[in-house]
Amino acid sequence: MEFGGRPFAAGRIADMPSFRPILFVVGILLVVLAGTMLVPAVVDWAAHNEDWRSFVIAAGFAAGVGTSGAIAAWTPHFQIRVRETFLITTASWVVLALFGALPFVLREHIGFTDAVFESMSGLTTTGSTVFTGLDNMPPGLLLWRSMLQWIGGVGIVVMAIMILPLLSVGGMQLFRAESSDRSEKIVAHPFYLAASIGAVYLVLTAACALAYALAGMTFFDAVNHAMTTLSTGGYSTHDASLSFFDQPSIHWIAIVFMAAGSLPFVLYIKSVKGDWLALFRDQQVRGFFSMVSVAAICLTIWLYLKHWPLLSAVRQAVFNVTSIVTTTGYASDDYSTWGTLPVSVFLMLTFLGGCTGSTAGAIKVFRLQIMLLMTREQLWRLLLPRIIYPRRYNGERVSDDIIPSVVAFLAAYIVVTAVIAVGLSAFGLDLITAISGAATAIGNVGPGLGRIIGPAGNFASLPDGAKWLLILGMMLGRLELFTVLVILTPAFWRA
Amino acid sequence: MEFGGRPFAAGRIADMPSFRPILFVVGILLVVLAGTMLVPAVVDWAAHNEDWRSFVIAAGFAAGVGTSGAIAAWTPHFQIRVRETFLITTASWVVLALFGALPFVLREHIGFTDAVFESMSGLTTTGSTVFTGLDNMPPGLLLWRSMLQWIGGVGIVVMAIMILPLLSVGGMQLFRAESSDRSEKIVAHPFYLAASIGAVYLVLTAACALAYALAGMTFFDAVNHAMTTLSTGGYSTHDASLSFFDQPSIHWIAIVFMAAGSLPFVLYIKSVKGDWLALFRDQQVRGFFSMVSVAAICLTIWLYLKHWPLLSAVRQAVFNVTSIVTTTGYASDDYSTWGTLPVSVFLMLTFLGGCTGSTAGAIKVFRLQIMLLMTREQLWRLLLPRIIYPRRYNGERVSDDIIPSVVAFLAAYIVVTAVIAVGLSAFGLDLITAISGAATAIGNVGPGLGRIIGPAGNFASLPDGAKWLLILGMMLGRLELFTVLVILTPAFWRA
Repeated sequence: MEFGGRPFAAGRIADMPSFRPILFVVGILLVVLAGTMLVPAVVDWAAHNEDWRSFVIAAGFAAGVGTSGAIAAWTPHFQIRVRETFLITTASWVVLALFGALPFVLREHIGFTDAVFESMSGLTTTGSTVFTGLDNMPPGLLLWRSMLQWIGGVGIVVMAIMILPLLSVGGMQLFRAESSDRSEKIVAHPFYLAASIGAVYLVLTAACALAYALAGMTFFDAVNHAMTTLSTGGYSTHDASLSFFDQPSIHWIAIVFMAAGSLPFVLYIKSVKGDWLALFRDQQVRGFFSMVSVAAICLTIWLYLKHWPLLSAVRQAVFNVTSIVTTTGYASDDYSTWGTLPVSVFLMLTFLGGCTGSTAGAIKVFRLQIMLLMTREQLWRLLLPRIIYPRRYNGERVSDDIIPSVVAFLAAYIVVTAVIAVGLSAFGLDLITAISGAATAIGNVGPGLGRIIGPAGNFASLPDGAKWLLILGMMLGRLELFTVLVILTPAFWRA
Repeated sequence: MEFGGRPFAAGRIADMPSFRPILFVVGILLVVLAGTMLVPAVVDWAAHNEDWRSFVIAAGFAAGVGTSGAIAAWTPHFQIRVRETFLITTASWVVLALFGALPFVLREHIGFTDAVFESMSGLTTTGSTVFTGLDNMPPGLLLWRSMLQWIGGVGIVVMAIMILPLLSVGGMQLFRAESSDRSEKIVAHPFYLAASIGAVYLVLTAACALAYALAGMTFFDAVNHAMTTLSTGGYSTHDASLSFFDQPSIHWIAIVFMAAGSLPFVLYIKSVKGDWLALFRDQQVRGFFSMVSVAAICLTIWLYLKHWPLLSAVRQAVFNVTSIVTTTGYASDDYSTWGTLPVSVFLMLTFLGGCTGSTAGAIKVFRLQIMLLMTREQLWRLLLPRIIYPRRYNGERVSDDIIPSVVAFLAAYIVVTAVIAVGLSAFGLDLITAISGAATAIGNVGPGLGRIIGPAGNFASLPDGAKWLLILGMMLGRLELFTVLVILTPAFWRA
């Protein structure tokens, strides 16, 4: 990509970005990842499964590389500026996805491409899978898939609340702690904020696991599904996903916690600190529930007209709409068989996404609301050209830099989706598979549409080139596009 | 639609819009339309075809209604403000499409829905057709279809140059005569501007007809196709469209004049007045040709790799890309059989469109360029937050009201396309037909994708409800969405 035009006052962009802090941070994260690999190792060892060795080998390798990197890069004076932050963020996701793939690579019959696909789909909480026969897989491997999503989930929330707003990516400066809550920061210190997010995440996951277990899941299934529910990831321990369980209560529990995972985590912290109504007052949260309700009601009516029993129509409509809008991607039924209307509705839902500052992906509610605000303003302006329209969001004035930022994000989102869809079609994928595949990857949703990658399908049979395009799409979508795109510009590297 | 928020300084919107000028203008236009109906009447009469009667009856009815309306509405003091202009513009297209359908309705075997569909598709220069057996139809009827597109085409250019910029619809205030050429208006008086546009249009059409005739078309075919080429309409006198003609020269002539029809007509006037390079200096024109070139080169390579002869690959790629991007919709081949990549490329091209101020539809080049400008600005801003980025287009500063206007247009374009696609799927259309149908209607392109409405297909077999949705889509797209949407807001009607 080439920047066009000559900006005024561009000044001189400083020297090359410094790689030491990048290597250091990624090294530390690798050591942490290595530590988490010991959990599935223990589980497999306890289950007398030989697979524990591959986790130990992978952990050893990751720890070794991470430690060497961190030690080599260490200096008491790190210089972490904006450009280093972009690089650290992007490098972390890429490197962790590669090392997270190690336990898969070390198993027989799983190729490098498939291993990276599954790992990236896990860490980005996308949930598209190339694995089949999940029901007969060793517990360690299943647990590792769920853990990748759970780790990725908390990483996303921390990144979306603490890093991206500072970088002004895609309008997220709207959610800078200072601007959204001028009188006081939510918590005093970044460390406590990160810890609070982690605590909320852990408590919600535990509650979800408990609810699943009480509703009849085995302990193992409950823990795995709780991790992939709260992270809005969508990996399951069964090929049939949540249609494996025929208790309606399990579906309703999943609905509640998928929604919980896609609300802004900052609001949970506010609620805990005494502002009980923070969640319900929030414009984004209300927008999210309105969107889900409208889509679910339409589909319920459609299914009811198709002679489904009402209760089952309500449950299936609410479940699958929530699953796609929260970008979880569980399937409780093959909705591609529901008829023509549901298929097109689910394609549109794939683009929407949950709230910012959660584990959800895709465009996200606040950006859709900013666009709605712009459209309303424009309608007023056509009637009254001199009108001063109040650009307010969540009761506060929207500063002038937010709009262009959101607009550029949407433009990039559409273009990237179109380019990846065309790329997928160049690998021979039909139009529906190509479009829904691009949308589901960039939105970190999970299932696509059509016979191959639909809710009852699987990404295994795609050509390797298509899988790499989807890996790229998942990474771009998760990092809100611009975190990666900015690194690809010549200006970023110009000394 | 409900306006949200309370605008500051909204003041009191004046009294109800005045209907007298609307009735008067639409009445006059109806009389003109009636006059044009006499042309196919004469042609049919000369060909000893009984159909001439239906044209005379339709002309008489339109003239009668038009005259009565104009006389009833006449007053020496018309009050035409912004709101009346919106109403006049929308009412003209709807009423003319309804009366333009009369000659079809009066024929046997053509239902009301099909007649209105064909007429609206003609006037909006979309070119989707519900008629089959064109090769055996009476000449008057074929001529009427071509004339609807030709009349619609000049109407669109006049509207896009003289009316929409004043209404600030979708960022078109960028093309106000004053702002784009401050020192002097292009021509002194609105009447001369309209006349100049008409003259350019007529000369180009005559040149196109001459070229077609010299390349081997019959006189009748040459005139018809010239009218539907310059208007970027795409109706043909043959079911096989331009694949009926196997002379490559005819395809190349069509390419040249389809492109000519989708360049800004104001630049032709400037060129004639001595500024010869105006066309080549224009940023929008250059963007248009870049877009077409990139797409055509990709498809040529694809076809060549599929073992097509090179010359034929170049011609077919350039022809069909030009046909879709200019929103003409001629087919020289069934490109849906070219493979997976071309199909996805043609779907994306359906959204782009030619230049503003031409007969082309869809999003249009300048809006895509404004979005590109915004994305580049954003990438710079991520690196240098304090940068003052030059928002320049065609060498001039883009005023601050353009961006929100373009953004709102794009948001509305996407939402309207999605809503109509979902609506079409509710009538049982498959996903590809629904999406490509919505896109081709709103973009005024013509052919969709899939077995039913693809380049070798036809809109005849769609259910009536779907046809009405497409009629609505064609009308909305042609009037740049907001001209119609603003009328649907309660604020518009509030006294």
